[in-house]
Amino acid sequence: MKVSANLFGAIALSLLVFVVPAFAQANEHALDEFNQKFTDAIRHMDNAAVMSLWADDGVSLLPGMAPIAGKTAIQQFMEDATSKTKGFKVVSHDNNWRDIRVSGDWASEWALTKQVVQPPDGKPILTINGKMLLVLHRDKDRTWKIQQESWTSSGS
Amino acid sequence: MKVSANLFGAIALSLLVFVVPAFAQANEHALDEFNQKFTDAIRHMDNAAVMSLWADDGVSLLPGMAPIAGKTAIQQFMEDATSKTKGFKVVSHDNNWRDIRVSGDWASEWALTKQVVQPPDGKPILTINGKMLLVLHRDKDRTWKIQQESWTSSGS
Repeated sequence: MKVSANLFGAIALSLLVFVVPAFAQANEHALDEFNQKFTDAIRHMDNAAVMSLWADDGVSLLPGMAPIAGKTAIQQFMEDATSKTKGFKVVSHDNNWRDIRVSGDWASEWALTKQVVQPPDGKPILTINGKMLLVLHRDKDRTWKIQQESWTSSGS
Repeated sequence: MKVSANLFGAIALSLLVFVVPAFAQANEHALDEFNQKFTDAIRHMDNAAVMSLWADDGVSLLPGMAPIAGKTAIQQFMEDATSKTKGFKVVSHDNNWRDIRVSGDWASEWALTKQVVQPPDGKPILTINGKMLLVLHRDKDRTWKIQQESWTSSGS
């Protein structure tokens, strides 16, 4: 019995030492792949890659306009925005992620966002600081998709 | 065996007919109490009631400023905003809630918000349309608290 008890203790300890931190780490890093893809897509101005990260019934909440509801409407908005900003180049884009939470097939996180943009014709570089709140859902293919996104400027 | 199979079938059917819709409904209405308290607190300009709905480490993401992190900072911001808008009265406030999702102790929802405000000295009434994304967490006392809030204007 003593051996069993010790064995049980050893297993319980190894669970605490190895499995619990691994689980916590898995949770903390559960969105790493999504976050990297999302940031890369924006850096490369790759609208198709951005759209691949949206849920079909996702909703984008952006300043000064009504909600944009559904992947088709979001794609149309992105294409319009791209054609209106022809010649603009994203020099750099960083998302500083905070409070990553996963509960079952749902997750949330927010980020401090910083984008540096080069306008055409040698106009001065723009630096846009903001913050973004995301609600994500794990799709049938087990990858995370954006259900809701809200972005606001942080001012100058 | 036939009786058992039928009984099992009947139980399975009653689960589908009664329990599944009840669960879905419970999920849909899980935030009703929170939503009503939150809307009422804003309508009554009751800062203490609003603050009672925030998590200690909640973060508010509002246009044109850095994130406001932590209940103490959010309370200070609300008190400053109240003293800067002395004499303003909330005539009406409505939150039209959408996409309510609960997963374990986490939840999210967004709302179309409409606030009608009467400024002092008979100045014209203001109507402020916006949209708000909330991430909520069930507290130790089993009530929902705001972890993150992001609000943006919807323009005129």
